[in-house]
Order: sequence, then C-alpha cells, then structure tokens
Amino acid sequence: MIEIPAPYLLFLGDVSNPLDAKTAMGLRDWRPERCVGQYRLPGCAVDLGLPEMDFSAAAATGAQSVVIGVAPSGGALKAEWVAALGEALRAGLSVVSGLHRKLSEAPELVDAAAASGQQLIDVRVPPASLPIASGRRRSGNRLLMVGTDCCVGKKYSALALHKALEARGVAATFRATGQTGILIAGGGIPMDAVVSDFLSGAAETLTPDAASGHWDVIEGQGSLFHPAYAAVTLGLIHGSQPDAMVLCHAVGRTVIDEYENYPVPVLRECIAQYERAARVTNEQSSVVCVSLNTEGLNDAEALAACDKVSTETGLQCVDPMRHVLDPILDVLL
Amino acid sequence: MIEIPAPYLLFLGDVSNPLDAKTAMGLRDWRPERCVGQYRLPGCAVDLGLPEMDFSAAAATGAQSVVIGVAPSGGALKAEWVAALGEALRAGLSVVSGLHRKLSEAPELVDAAAASGQQLIDVRVPPASLPIASGRRRSGNRLLMVGTDCCVGKKYSALALHKALEARGVAATFRATGQTGILIAGGGIPMDAVVSDFLSGAAETLTPDAASGHWDVIEGQGSLFHPAYAAVTLGLIHGSQPDAMVLCHAVGRTVIDEYENYPVPVLRECIAQYERAARVTNEQSSVVCVSLNTEGLNDAEALAACDKVSTETGLQCVDPMRHVLDPILDVLL
Repeated sequence: MIEIPAPYLLFLGDVSNPLDAKTAMGLRDWRPERCVGQYRLPGCAVDLGLPEMDFSAAAATGAQSVVIGVAPSGGALKAEWVAALGEALRAGLSVVSGLHRKLSEAPELVDAAAASGQQLIDVRVPPASLPIASGRRRSGNRLLMVGTDCCVGKKYSALALHKALEARGVAATFRATGQTGILIAGGGIPMDAVVSDFLSGAAETLTPDAASGHWDVIEGQGSLFHPAYAAVTLGLIHGSQPDAMVLCHAVGRTVIDEYENYPVPVLRECIAQYERAARVTNEQSSVVCVSLNTEGLNDAEALAACDKVSTETGLQCVDPMRHVLDPILDVLL
Repeated sequence: MIEIPAPYLLFLGDVSNPLDAKTAMGLRDWRPERCVGQYRLPGCAVDLGLPEMDFSAAAATGAQSVVIGVAPSGGALKAEWVAALGEALRAGLSVVSGLHRKLSEAPELVDAAAASGQQLIDVRVPPASLPIASGRRRSGNRLLMVGTDCCVGKKYSALALHKALEARGVAATFRATGQTGILIAGGGIPMDAVVSDFLSGAAETLTPDAASGHWDVIEGQGSLFHPAYAAVTLGLIHGSQPDAMVLCHAVGRTVIDEYENYPVPVLRECIAQYERAARVTNEQSSVVCVSLNTEGLNDAEALAACDKVSTETGLQCVDPMRHVLDPILDVLL
C-alpha cells in the first residue's frame, strides 16, 4: 500500500484559480493536523490560511513531505515548480503528487531524490506487487461507498462517515481508493490504475484483518452502471467484501455523466444489483442507507428530496453535507 | 491490438512432455494453414508432425515469425533457447511468446531484434495506448463466451463456434482475450493484463464496427462469480456489448476452481446475472445457449447431462467437443 510520510507542507505553485487548489483545500479541511504550512511561488493567488513556510523551515518544524496540492494548467510540471521541488528534496522532504504526469519522469527530481535520500511518491501509481485475491473472509467490519454514477459524493460520504464513527468512539479507518483520497488518508491504493487481474487482490490488501469492533470506511470507485468503469467498481466490491454499503446518489442525476445514452436505473434496482454483486464474496452484505448529494437545492427541498428517496427505497437517506449522520450510524452499529 | 506476422515456425525447444506443448498443438489443430513447420532443439521428444525446418529454411518458405509453442519448466528462458531465438531473429523472423517471462527482459534478444529489424512480441503485454470506453454501440454482431467459472471451455467453445459459423458461410472473426487465444487468432488483447480503467475500452477496441451480417466470436475471461477475476469478466462484457452470450460450464463443477468456499450458482441464476450485467451496454443481450464440457463422461452420459441442463435452463445445450453445433447456430442466426 502507498504510505505518505506526515506531516505535510502544501505546495500551491503559482496557481491563481482556487478551483485548481481543491486537493490542497481537501487536505486542509479533512486533515488539518497533518498540514504544517503552505508554500507559494511568486504569482500564487490562492491562500489556504496556513503558515507560510519555506522548505527548510517546514523540515525544521517536523514536516516529512511536500504535497503538490494544485493542478497545473495543462498537467505538465513547469520548470519553476521542478526547481522548487528539487530544493524541497534537498531540504529533506519527500515530494508527493497526484498529477497525471509522474514525478519520476522529471530527471532533475529523480537525481535530487537519490542524492538526498528522499522519496518521490506518485499516488496514481499502484504498489508493485499486489496479490491475486484469495477470497478469504477477514476479521473486522467494512463499509463501502457505492454509487449510481461517478462524481456523486462517494469520497465525501466516506470521509464524513469515518469522522462521525470516530466521534461516537468507534474505531474506524478511512481507506482511500483514488488519488485525492490517498493524499487525505496518507495512504491507499489507486484502484483504477491497478492491472485487472489484481484488482480484487488490491482491495483485499487495502482492507486487512482488523479488531472485531473496527470499521474500515472505504471510498468507492465508479458505478456498476457505468459503461467504462464498472469493472473497477466490481473488483473493489469483491475484494473489500463489504458488510454494509452506502448507496451514493446526486439529486437529478438521471443519466451517467458524459454518457447521455446510459440511464441511471431506479434506486431500488441499483440497490438490488449492488447486493447481488457483493454477496458473491459476503453473503450478509446489504445496502444500509442512501447518501444523497442535494447540491443546488434549498434546505426544505433537500429534506423533501431525502424523504422521497427514503420512501422509494425503504432506507434512511441523508445529505452528509447538510445533515447529521446519526440515522446512518444507528442502522450500522 | 496485438498483431502477429504469419505464417509461423513453431518452436518446441527441448521439451519432452507433450503437456508442455499444448500451445503448439492448439496452433497446429486450429490454424494448420499458418504453421509452416516445427523447430526442435536436441533432446526434444515432442513431435507435431509438421516439417522439420531451421530458421533460414522457414524464412525462405515465407515464415514471418517463430512462435514459442511450449512452456519451459520453471518459466525462465534457458540459455540454449535464447541462443536459438537470437539466430531466428538474425534469419529474419520475429519472435513471439506467451510466457510470463518477457522476451524484452533478455538483452541478447533485444539486441538481435534491433540489429535485424525484427519484432519481439510478448502476447501477455497489452497495447500501450488503449482508450476509455465510449459506450457507443457499434455495427455488426457480437457473441461472447461467459462462464460459471474459469477453465470450463470458453476458448474452445469460441473457436468451435467460429469454425461452425464459417462452415455455414457466415462471416465471422474469432476475437482472442488471453495469451493462447491470441497466438491462435494471430492477434487480440490480453484482457487480464489491462489496467482496470481501460478494460472496457480495450474490449471496445477488440470488437470494432463490422458489416451487418458479421459475427465477432469472443473468447471469454473468468466468471462473474469468481472472487478474484470477476472484474475482468465484467469489463469484457460491458465493452464487447454482446448481442448474444453462450454460458460455458463443466459437468460436476459445483465450486469455483481452487476457491472451495465459493459455490457456483445454479445455472438459471448465472444466466440471469450475465443478462443483467450485459444489458447495461446492450439492452437486447441474452444468453442463447449453454456449452457443456462433459469431459470424463461416456457418450450416453454426456447426452443425458446436456438434456438435463437443457431442461433446467430452457436453452439448447451441447458439448462442442462431441456434438454438432447446429442447434446453437440455429438459435443464433
């Protein structure tokens, strides 16, 4: 499994659009205790409100890694960024990236990492040796987010549920399956980058044996109804052997995003399909509630939308951005 | 897509056990017109009954590739084999392998290929640039083998159905999804080696637009009920958008091979699950018949077993190793 040395200095480069800094904001919001400061190049117009630090100062306060928290326009690493990140390595920090372009493709960084003994960590690159799934049942409990589509709020739901479980005193671990989640969790496996044969084995590795009261709260990927990504979803379901699943849905989503000829099935049908798929490796698996993304609705409309889904499905339904999660935890525990 | 230059000289190395030459025998049996001869090292005790040829003679008769048709014990390429294959490259032949150990990991072969301008083709390595699936429906017809488990006869069923379609004068192409199938087909994509995100896109690439009466007959992979490999199966189903599926099963298989805690569902349930999965990308998809592997039964028992499956499922059932395939073709066409 990928493991990112913490705490972090967040690298913001020279971006000017806050939308390009969503990863950094996610880290600051979900894991403030791991973010010691921010580093900005001249021209950067984004401010996370964290202490401004250079690499030596960050290292002196105990930072272990500099995390690239922004997406550069075009996806390539600019020469100025590479120069700064080389300096970070020489100051004793590992460099961590969730970008498509790999750090290991920049020779200056490879050389600087080798010379300084620091790591280059590309969180889109899965671990080298993953096993074929064994199908063995493991101890502990697992809660998996599943979706009617991509981009319906699976990562957010998992993070919110993990936080709510810990707030109730329940031992829980957030298990990340995509690059942003991995940066927030400080580790995980980018499931969509795993070679197909090893997908379920990767999900088994991600959610190992645990104490009997412990819950792994697992970020989902894709959707069983997505014409391109359903295989990733199924491998994650089979390998994680979820005891419980949360169906994540976005209000008004009637077709798969960017695939207008692909309707999202009615929720009861989605639930039945997820349960059939999950019961291949865990006979007791069931969808326990619905997490509804009500973005764009006012509070009264959001409550009404949740009530409607609840009536349709016979399950509790909340929006974790707006509502308390107790109804879900009560069903789960 | 991988493409193997034909015709072939079959390389048998120095193996002595005919079981180690299954790939070469499959090539000889299914594609005799592509096999110009055999090449054996001293000590080889296997004989395919093909003309004995050295590399220069094979090249002179028009051979384009030497295909390693045997599995060396231990999986590694012996020094004697590497030396002989280097000679083949220098004689103007490409070298093709389905072994786990890659040809490109043998520096002598890489050098000889570069010097001679010939290819090293590892059929377990997928093409470099595969697309994300578009979900677009394509012209032509597609017939996919699906299984209750791995190793139930999917490749054999596809090859036999392809042959039977051609014998009826129906335009058809065998589409290979695993290394042995790729060697027989002369091309294809090793689905289990594709990165998960691109799995359905790979299956779309493998089965492109075709004439309206044409059938792609697609080798299946894995099983939806396999705890390790179901993701590969689902990606292949979604991307290939099969109009029709053949459920392949082996008599007496009640649990997944090597996964004794995983029962094979009753056939009617398997059929229903495959149809639900396939209808995500092709609403008209259905399982049209059952291909039953009756190995170990006598003729009367085999017929009785097929009758029993037919009664259970309401579908035609034959063993393509023993019976004519007309009942299947009649349903299909």
